[in-house]
Amino acid sequence: MPRPDQRAPEQLRPVKITRGWLDHAEGSVLVEFGRTRVLCAASVEESVPRWRKGSGLGWVTAEYAMLPRATNTRGARESVRGKIGGRTHEISRLVGRSLRAVVDFKALGENTITLDCDVLQADGGTRTAAITGAYVALADAVGWLRERRSLKRDPLTGSVAAVSVGIVDDEPRLDLCYEEDVAAGTDMNVVVTGTGDFVEVQGTAEGAPFDRGLLDRLLDLAVLGGAELTELQRKALAG
Amino acid sequence: MPRPDQRAPEQLRPVKITRGWLDHAEGSVLVEFGRTRVLCAASVEESVPRWRKGSGLGWVTAEYAMLPRATNTRGARESVRGKIGGRTHEISRLVGRSLRAVVDFKALGENTITLDCDVLQADGGTRTAAITGAYVALADAVGWLRERRSLKRDPLTGSVAAVSVGIVDDEPRLDLCYEEDVAAGTDMNVVVTGTGDFVEVQGTAEGAPFDRGLLDRLLDLAVLGGAELTELQRKALAG
Amino acid sequence: MPRPDQRAPEQLRPVKITRGWLDHAEGSVLVEFGRTRVLCAASVEESVPRWRKGSGLGWVTAEYAMLPRATNTRGARESVRGKIGGRTHEISRLVGRSLRAVVDFKALGENTITLDCDVLQADGGTRTAAITGAYVALADAVGWLRERRSLKRDPLTGSVAAVSVGIVDDEPRLDLCYEEDVAAGTDMNVVVTGTGDFVEVQGTAEGAPFDRGLLDRLLDLAVLGGAELTELQRKALAG
Amino acid sequence: MPRPDQRAPEQLRPVKITRGWLDHAEGSVLVEFGRTRVLCAASVEESVPRWRKGSGLGWVTAEYAMLPRATNTRGARESVRGKIGGRTHEISRLVGRSLRAVVDFKALGENTITLDCDVLQADGGTRTAAITGAYVALADAVGWLRERRSLKRDPLTGSVAAVSVGIVDDEPRLDLCYEEDVAAGTDMNVVVTGTGDFVEVQGTAEGAPFDRGLLDRLLDLAVLGGAELTELQRKALAG
Amino acid sequence: MPRPDQRAPEQLRPVKITRGWLDHAEGSVLVEFGRTRVLCAASVEESVPRWRKGSGLGWVTAEYAMLPRATNTRGARESVRGKIGGRTHEISRLVGRSLRAVVDFKALGENTITLDCDVLQADGGTRTAAITGAYVALADAVGWLRERRSLKRDPLTGSVAAVSVGIVDDEPRLDLCYEEDVAAGTDMNVVVTGTGDFVEVQGTAEGAPFDRGLLDRLLDLAVLGGAELTELQRKALAG
Amino acid sequence: MPRPDQRAPEQLRPVKITRGWLDHAEGSVLVEFGRTRVLCAASVEESVPRWRKGSGLGWVTAEYAMLPRATNTRGARESVRGKIGGRTHEISRLVGRSLRAVVDFKALGENTITLDCDVLQADGGTRTAAITGAYVALADAVGWLRERRSLKRDPLTGSVAAVSVGIVDDEPRLDLCYEEDVAAGTDMNVVVTGTGDFVEVQGTAEGAPFDRGLLDRLLDLAVLGGAELTELQRKALAG
Repeated sequence: MPRPDQRAPEQLRPVKITRGWLDHAEGSVLVEFGRTRVLCAASVEESVPRWRKGSGLGWVTAEYAMLPRATNTRGARESVRGKIGGRTHEISRLVGRSLRAVVDFKALGENTITLDCDVLQADGGTRTAAITGAYVALADAVGWLRERRSLKRDPLTGSVAAVSVGIVDDEPRLDLCYEEDVAAGTDMNVVVTGTGDFVEVQGTAEGAPFDRGLLDRLLDLAVLGGAELTELQRKALAG
Repeated sequence: MPRPDQRAPEQLRPVKITRGWLDHAEGSVLVEFGRTRVLCAASVEESVPRWRKGSGLGWVTAEYAMLPRATNTRGARESVRGKIGGRTHEISRLVGRSLRAVVDFKALGENTITLDCDVLQADGGTRTAAITGAYVALADAVGWLRERRSLKRDPLTGSVAAVSVGIVDDEPRLDLCYEEDVAAGTDMNVVVTGTGDFVEVQGTAEGAPFDRGLLDRLLDLAVLGGAELTELQRKALAG
Repeated sequence: MPRPDQRAPEQLRPVKITRGWLDHAEGSVLVEFGRTRVLCAASVEESVPRWRKGSGLGWVTAEYAMLPRATNTRGARESVRGKIGGRTHEISRLVGRSLRAVVDFKALGENTITLDCDVLQADGGTRTAAITGAYVALADAVGWLRERRSLKRDPLTGSVAAVSVGIVDDEPRLDLCYEEDVAAGTDMNVVVTGTGDFVEVQGTAEGAPFDRGLLDRLLDLAVLGGAELTELQRKALAG
Repeated sequence: MPRPDQRAPEQLRPVKITRGWLDHAEGSVLVEFGRTRVLCAASVEESVPRWRKGSGLGWVTAEYAMLPRATNTRGARESVRGKIGGRTHEISRLVGRSLRAVVDFKALGENTITLDCDVLQADGGTRTAAITGAYVALADAVGWLRERRSLKRDPLTGSVAAVSVGIVDDEPRLDLCYEEDVAAGTDMNVVVTGTGDFVEVQGTAEGAPFDRGLLDRLLDLAVLGGAELTELQRKALAG
Repeated sequence: MPRPDQRAPEQLRPVKITRGWLDHAEGSVLVEFGRTRVLCAASVEESVPRWRKGSGLGWVTAEYAMLPRATNTRGARESVRGKIGGRTHEISRLVGRSLRAVVDFKALGENTITLDCDVLQADGGTRTAAITGAYVALADAVGWLRERRSLKRDPLTGSVAAVSVGIVDDEPRLDLCYEEDVAAGTDMNVVVTGTGDFVEVQGTAEGAPFDRGLLDRLLDLAVLGGAELTELQRKALAG
Repeated sequence: MPRPDQRAPEQLRPVKITRGWLDHAEGSVLVEFGRTRVLCAASVEESVPRWRKGSGLGWVTAEYAMLPRATNTRGARESVRGKIGGRTHEISRLVGRSLRAVVDFKALGENTITLDCDVLQADGGTRTAAITGAYVALADAVGWLRERRSLKRDPLTGSVAAVSVGIVDDEPRLDLCYEEDVAAGTDMNVVVTGTGDFVEVQGTAEGAPFDRGLLDRLLDLAVLGGAELTELQRKALAG
């Protein structure tokens, strides 16, 4: 099975990061990984959750969700079903954890930044696009706080980006689209910092269990992709 | 209080209707009324709800929702709160009812078209933008069915559009933005067909009750605005 | 289709307003519009919702609900289903908004009056009966506060009543019963003050969209019915 | 502490059973035990729950609920809170179980009768009033089925009524009102058949545990009260 | 039908009370009535619910639940269904009420003890085992408080235990297992103090209503069984 | 920080696998990793979820939960809160996915096996204990099906076990207890097959991001621990 869009195995889809897509949010990004399109909005609140009050520390959290028709077939709304599904919960937690890895909460002070990552269109890699875009929205929200002189020093200790890798037809591939994701025997989401370290490694054998050699090749590919995304984030924030 | 964007009282905000904004949906529109931005996705399902099975009749329904940071201050997600609020329920019902007014369910056959109207950014008039955009998405979904030869005849008996009108500083104004909406003493949402008839009239005295004369002036204004929107829909569908 | 109870088109059903139907509530009314029977209870609480604390302003709110066997066929309880339906939400909001239109919140002071409107039996027009009865219960609750010298001046700036009108067999009719409501092409609920001004106008084309002439005739009829209900409320409160 | 309404210890409050209080329900009763007022509606459905299909057996079930202002202080609606409280659950189950004790499900055939017991006003003994009234509504629903010749033989094997007893100031008392209920050290609800047998005995030591002698005196009193209620039910059904 | 385990009618199943089954809880008991196995954990919190704050009084409450595969056929989790069933509610309330009957809340001071009774395996009598075990866990939690010198005097005014009795094949039997419970015409749960007084008596005619003579024989049997369980609790606490 | 229980860094806690802990379940295991204690029950249902009907394929799923007092401080029940938390969702999905990696669904036929993993006591590594124990319960349930001759061939294609590894004080350690888990900078859960391949790798930088060298050392340690657990599972199943 060749790649549906003729990419090389180690090639990302066209990635587009549009800052300031919303007028109200303190930071906002429309991030596109090919046809996957995620709207990331950063909201600043000048307070922290109850359990963190008086600690002098800030907080960063995230909520991930999908519009009902982001996917090929319409899915029921979680608000209508009255509960959040396991997948949504899992990804929201992953996005929040990933961003918190590069935040100095003391420098942030008692502010909360919430990242809403809403998938407008899904074609594989929505969680990695969400993390990659959310970092840029977070950086903009931090900039907004800095401009208002609400921060003593930079609360960002680095940058963070994420990418998926997987084995399709025995070939390690970078940044799977939905069609490839379904076909992949092994599937891995890797969150890396701008300096190439790991924040999160999540690999799953969808089909046959995988050995150490394969795992190593996937990690290599992910580090490569992560570096490219870091560069794209840097350019977007410089632009 | 002059209009925040210097419009004449009987002038709409810049309206933009972008068809085909999504790749998966059978019909999709990004509709903009000034800064208000609503994504309308039409999903076709080749079946009907249980209570309508075997009737030979189709169904059209709608779900309206707002992204948490569509507004100036972040709102809690209804999926997280575990229930849908009254306002969301009310508008979802209004959108569905408005669209059904121009559908011949016999011609549609046992198909269901669901219109998801998700407010990406809110600046007043989200329900009227939703109805106006959803009609165009519905028309595209009907076109999709027609191309697949799933329809014997056109299930659309007309077009439908909606606009808000209100009294601000004793002046009847068309298409209120959020700032005006808050200031308005009386506020009315009017859904009209392409032939200028009424589908829904919802007027509310936010401040002092209003008399018949005022009501008449507001209706006049709404009919005017509805005609303009109808023309914009026509152009968008022709384009 | 003649009126099921032989009324003239512009005639209300027999309306009965029984005050003090409950022993505990600060105000209570059993209101009957023909076979439609709604129990309206006003509860006074000497505090206001959190978002209004310290403002010096009072609050009036309403909750509408139906007993499971109010209708011809038993409906499931919303408490058992675990969520409130859209229709219930919509009407609760309408009742609250209508009553607030005649309340001076400064005069009320930091008190909350909650109007519970529970439909014991439904035969069309439950929301209009609810508003008409709730106003009387509200007036009694205000009287209760006055007697306890908790108010400096009268918080009621007027009275409010509501009535439905609709087109059945091309004939505009006042105060539709359930059978007529189902048959009506256009259906309108109108909330008017005791001085004949409009608080809320909600018209819906159930069948074909309606033109301005029809709308005008329906509004005329509603104003007429509203005046009659106002007189009945006045008599009940005087009695 | 004397009885608030000067009754003798072994005296019931004035009991009133009004049949046919609703127009739609197959059986309906407004039952009053003093100021306690419960509306009991019996709904017949010509089918049974899934787990009973094809068994040839019918089903009888009950739902108990309280209007928010039935009580002295307004309580939150269970539909609004999104869940049913433990007390409501418990009483609904008790009412259903009590009625099923006198039903021959084979004679009922695959029909379901649902008893909705809605407390319009509460002054102690709402569950016993509910059972007592629900039996009469059930009998009327059975009569309705019999008239439609849907039954081969009488599915009622007896009658059922319920009464509360308790110890106040060391005195066993029958049919406690709310004020007494609160003051009672021991509180017992007893469901008896028309022939004086027990269907359910629920005694609770609210204060000090009670001994066998006291239990016996309370049971004696309950049997007495049950016989009176049986007679009142008989008269109501004969009337 | 002979007893499935050849017991005499007035014989308890082998009862085993294992204290300290958990490492974290302030008191914990694995209680076994034959194959019925309930884990009772007592948790001490040095505060009371909001409605009791500042009263100087403590609180004791309980939550009962069943693991999905405690029963012969797997049951759905209440957390997954999103609501607690009526039976669970009912038993949780019964356990809490029973324990509170032997607690002096003034002596407890503003502490809350929560008893979690989780049924690991069910074979009839889970609620009676829960009460019997929970009392021992409660006593241990009180001991824990005493050791920390948080109590002025003993808050336990007595002990409490519970047992089921029922009529199977016209024979009154003590401590029914599941098979007998299903077959029983009448079923009674009795909560008694260590001095043989009643805290709660709940008898239900599952089949034919029962007469006073039968009721008396069941109560005799229950008092007997209660005394034996009291002795077993005493031994466990002494051990 | 030395290990709280003096273990060597590459040493597992004492692991105990008790089969047949429950009488009703088709397979059941009480698994202990030190003080962590998880009850795993396998339930066989001779049908499959709706979306799999008619496929000839079986299904394996899992639900993970914690008793309220499994932890050091009591946690609220998810059934009482009315929703399942993100962590519970995430782990339930992980356990199910891990087990499915070694199941041949064609060989299983249209049967469903549900693994309930209930944490009775938590001291770190509850998810890894759950997976390790659940595999043994699954094997027993498969044995039960085989004995009833419901299977043509063995649906288990291998075994699966899981272990946590982490960096504490710069030292890679195997099988962290709660105290170490909290202190760990990086934390990884690894699911391996009996042949040493990976089914799932989940690594998270709780503190500083980690580099490739560290990741490799953690994976080495996990493979080692996995092999030991595999051997313990083998022995338990042989015993």
